[in-house]
Amino acid sequence: MLQAAPSAPRVVIDNVTPSVDAGRFAAKRIVGETIRVEADIFAEGHDVLGAELLWRAADEREWRRVAMEALPNDRWAASFAPARVGKHFFTIEAWRDEFATLCRDIEIKRAAGVDVALEAAEGRQLVAHAAEQGENREALAAILARFDAAPLDQQIELLLAPATRATMAAAGERPFRTQREPRLLLEVERPQAGFASWYELFPRSATEDPDRHGRFDDVIALLPTIRDMGFDVLYFPPIHPIGTTNRKGRNNSLRPEPGDLGSPYAIGSPEGGHDAIHPALGTIDDFRRLQRAASEHGLEIALDFAIQCSPDHPWLKAHPGWFRWRPDGSLRYAENPPKKYEDIVNVDFYAEAGIPDLWIALRDIVLYWVDEGVRLFRVDNPHTKPLPFWEWLIEDVRGRHPDVIFLSEAFTRPKMMYRLAKLGFSQSYTYFTWRNSKQELTDYLIELTTTGVKDYFRPHFFVNTPDINPFFLQSSGRAGFLIRAALATTLSGLWGMYSGFELCEAAALPGREEYLDSEKYQIRVRRRDAPGNIVAEIAALNRLRKTNPALQTHLGLRFYNAFNDQVLVYGKALPSHEDMDHGSLAVEDLMRGHRFVWTGKLQRARLDPAALPFALWRIAPVA
Amino acid sequence: MLQAAPSAPRVVIDNVTPSVDAGRFAAKRIVGETIRVEADIFAEGHDVLGAELLWRAADEREWRRVAMEALPNDRWAASFAPARVGKHFFTIEAWRDEFATLCRDIEIKRAAGVDVALEAAEGRQLVAHAAEQGENREALAAILARFDAAPLDQQIELLLAPATRATMAAAGERPFRTQREPRLLLEVERPQAGFASWYELFPRSATEDPDRHGRFDDVIALLPTIRDMGFDVLYFPPIHPIGTTNRKGRNNSLRPEPGDLGSPYAIGSPEGGHDAIHPALGTIDDFRRLQRAASEHGLEIALDFAIQCSPDHPWLKAHPGWFRWRPDGSLRYAENPPKKYEDIVNVDFYAEAGIPDLWIALRDIVLYWVDEGVRLFRVDNPHTKPLPFWEWLIEDVRGRHPDVIFLSEAFTRPKMMYRLAKLGFSQSYTYFTWRNSKQELTDYLIELTTTGVKDYFRPHFFVNTPDINPFFLQSSGRAGFLIRAALATTLSGLWGMYSGFELCEAAALPGREEYLDSEKYQIRVRRRDAPGNIVAEIAALNRLRKTNPALQTHLGLRFYNAFNDQVLVYGKALPSHEDMDHGSLAVEDLMRGHRFVWTGKLQRARLDPAALPFALWRIAPVA
Repeated sequence: MLQAAPSAPRVVIDNVTPSVDAGRFAAKRIVGETIRVEADIFAEGHDVLGAELLWRAADEREWRRVAMEALPNDRWAASFAPARVGKHFFTIEAWRDEFATLCRDIEIKRAAGVDVALEAAEGRQLVAHAAEQGENREALAAILARFDAAPLDQQIELLLAPATRATMAAAGERPFRTQREPRLLLEVERPQAGFASWYELFPRSATEDPDRHGRFDDVIALLPTIRDMGFDVLYFPPIHPIGTTNRKGRNNSLRPEPGDLGSPYAIGSPEGGHDAIHPALGTIDDFRRLQRAASEHGLEIALDFAIQCSPDHPWLKAHPGWFRWRPDGSLRYAENPPKKYEDIVNVDFYAEAGIPDLWIALRDIVLYWVDEGVRLFRVDNPHTKPLPFWEWLIEDVRGRHPDVIFLSEAFTRPKMMYRLAKLGFSQSYTYFTWRNSKQELTDYLIELTTTGVKDYFRPHFFVNTPDINPFFLQSSGRAGFLIRAALATTLSGLWGMYSGFELCEAAALPGREEYLDSEKYQIRVRRRDAPGNIVAEIAALNRLRKTNPALQTHLGLRFYNAFNDQVLVYGKALPSHEDMDHGSLAVEDLMRGHRFVWTGKLQRARLDPAALPFALWRIAPVA
Repeated sequence: MLQAAPSAPRVVIDNVTPSVDAGRFAAKRIVGETIRVEADIFAEGHDVLGAELLWRAADEREWRRVAMEALPNDRWAASFAPARVGKHFFTIEAWRDEFATLCRDIEIKRAAGVDVALEAAEGRQLVAHAAEQGENREALAAILARFDAAPLDQQIELLLAPATRATMAAAGERPFRTQREPRLLLEVERPQAGFASWYELFPRSATEDPDRHGRFDDVIALLPTIRDMGFDVLYFPPIHPIGTTNRKGRNNSLRPEPGDLGSPYAIGSPEGGHDAIHPALGTIDDFRRLQRAASEHGLEIALDFAIQCSPDHPWLKAHPGWFRWRPDGSLRYAENPPKKYEDIVNVDFYAEAGIPDLWIALRDIVLYWVDEGVRLFRVDNPHTKPLPFWEWLIEDVRGRHPDVIFLSEAFTRPKMMYRLAKLGFSQSYTYFTWRNSKQELTDYLIELTTTGVKDYFRPHFFVNTPDINPFFLQSSGRAGFLIRAALATTLSGLWGMYSGFELCEAAALPGREEYLDSEKYQIRVRRRDAPGNIVAEIAALNRLRKTNPALQTHLGLRFYNAFNDQVLVYGKALPSHEDMDHGSLAVEDLMRGHRFVWTGKLQRARLDPAALPFALWRIAPVA
């Protein structure tokens, strides 16, 4: 026991940031981004320490090294910028720097008029010791020769000379060298993991006739409109064959009418399962053509990964051991008692026959679509599937294709939402849709941008979804849609809307957050130039996001006092531009195009909900 | 890789409190104290979970188990109260409770009028499975027999019956059972680790004649006075032989006069080292007699563990390899450039000849005094000795004698101070002496009582020390001594004063925080009944600490608004008494003895610095 004690680390390396659960999970960053690493580094006494940041991509063998700088109060910092996507490692090495300590003491003593002859001799000892050991022997021997030929004054100058210090540092004498363990993890992702504008539509509604099922080719015709609104991702609910057993009718009815199409979330029929395309939408070739066309319009396709099966899914017959059968030989419907989803059954992840076959089959479905060029997956209800499954699946897929992005569609308690992000989801749905008051928005954004979650949880602010017709929008009118769009586009690097929002659609099932005549169960035909639409405003907001980097992340946010509980004022700034403490500021009203100057601590502004209920100002010091 | 994934924990156990650096260090508690453990526990989906707290003393083999209770938002809690001092372990076990899940679903479905025949059959399956496995087979078989003979309604009642649930819970069916790893650590200490009042004196000053060296027998004569002031610990600076080489004269002079006694921190002479007693103080038998007398007066003796040596310490000749000699054959004096301590040299903890001999010799010095009955050690400047040394020494000594308490006398940067506490020091000197303004005191106490440090850093509030004659007291007069005593005694469970404070001594070296004619270098004779003393007030404060448990810890502190920057108002409450939101409060003025009632949200109070600059009110709801 004592044998171990003297070899325990003499230098403490602690409280390293960024770090998620002390290295159990990865912090998330964007490729090319400058990553600042900080740590507490200290040891007993007053000796000078040295420290380096060590980093590398997971598939590299050698550490890259960056010298760390000492900040006040035992804090140290260094930065690096990975050039590739994928998993990275980093850690910190620290040691006692005896030569730097001696130089510092000599300088202090010289200044105090204290004799330093003995210190000069000690300096010579250190140089001689380094010369015997490792690197830089010749340079060190030359220093020794000059030292021995010089009088004391010049010996001191020689020891303190920057060239001598650099040579000694390069010699690699690092007594009590310690590396922080375990190494820390970093997921470096492509820019779209942090900055993207999503547009969601049901491809079967890409039609002008409710009796004609929209096809992928019809979606191609919509691409210019979506691109012109400034979106970069086009996301579809499941595009697979839909079951007929217990198929839902319009407005979630248990009694479908002939011709009802069913919910696309009831996946699987004799025509195929999760790797098949609903024949009414088109063929795999149609899908490939749509992908190419989308790409030409600057749009990336995102698919829905919804693990549940319709009772007609081919797996029920091919792999009955992947399901948990009840005493009467039936399968349990998906349910959240007393709610039932009669058109859906769930796999049993821990069924004996499902390990590992079911897990691999699900992974292979993702890989199938990855092979088809899909790199964005919105995952349906991940919080109802086992957490070890997600951690394994995402690591497996991203290990092969580090450009794949998973979006977690979990609406549940906060700890589960954050855990899913830790396990590997690049992006996450949030409570944004239910945060309406100034206090609610402020509290939530402060949590997302200033607490530990900022290192791993990237919020995706959807203003609506096929499942969420927010109460606020049901009665807000057009001004409400504008304000929610402005909040989402300026508060978060990731935002999304589901088709119809741009037309201010809000008709609801009475007293519910569900849309009336929900597209989950039927085709909805839309006139995209309907009066009162906010297409132009959305296009303007998306354009401003592209030209203002501060709007491409939720971070860098700061709230300001507005003297009014109905007015929310906040600023976004890049890390290098956070100081706005100037006497005069040049202001550009980005939505209206005016320019003016603010002077003094208080400014007045007028917002007219009937025109535009928000303002966006770009602010810079007066040149 | 996939093989491991399905066996990864399905249930998350996270964010356990108390926990210091995820189990790397121990949380500190007092024996008999109720320890509340909380954790985030959750899994995917909606199934009911079960959880138990597991705990044991380090030398026990079997876990004790306490059922945890589910709180809102995935938080769980349980409590336990260790009955012994020493190291303890605890962890948490959680699992999916399938039977409880089924019972919950049956209740929801019954209430919604849904048929539950199939659920009853599933319940039978679960009971039958449990009956095949482990505990409680007979009781479970009896339940099955009753179930099979009953109609559906009674089957359901039987499944939901508390007795059935208890029998199933006791059966130990815990699918996906997970234990939190690593187990967490707890240091359980005797009450004096958290609540004590220390009095420091130089035994050589226990004399009425500056030319007569005080002896332990003279200290015995002072014990009634110290006990009457309400102290329970009597602490001495080093009591060992003092070197003569480079001995310091009065007021830290480099030129001692004949007869000057030197600093007791210059430890060691031909008469002995750290395990010897200065002959002028007495013999080991005199020390033993003093210990017995102190104990009879309710006072415990604390000694100083100061590792440095005088140049005359026997170790320099006996163990030259424990020191680091300079190129000219001399030893470096202790220094903090350009400051020098010419009468002290330091051992080299990492000298080749010192490992392990030096470390063991130092440990054995502590054990020598432990064998002499000493259980309290104030450690001088631990932050200038290697951290691995302290972690090893304290664990070794406390492993043999868990009632030993180490007090860290580190005045340095906060991270080092906190690290020393993590490594095992039971108590720590603090910045209290330099926190004077309302804001400074509030900020510091909030840090100590509400952040992570509250689990391992026990602040010891000294109002003065032989090294610190606070600037505030140098000019405050008697009222300043009273207010600092009131702050220390009511803010912290641990407080201490150095002899002379009760007499409002404040003469300083000009412009320095040093006492004039410092007792570190000479005898100081005191009249303990000097006019203007605050002996009575200190005695009253110490008495109130003994009768009010809320004053026996720094925790449970809350600050209140005072509408005045010169007035600090705070409350202390036990965890069970924290709610003071009552219409009327019965108030007792503890220093003046009045009783009255407070009604309403605002109260007026008058404080006269010339009389008593503080008030202490005991508050309870009106009966």
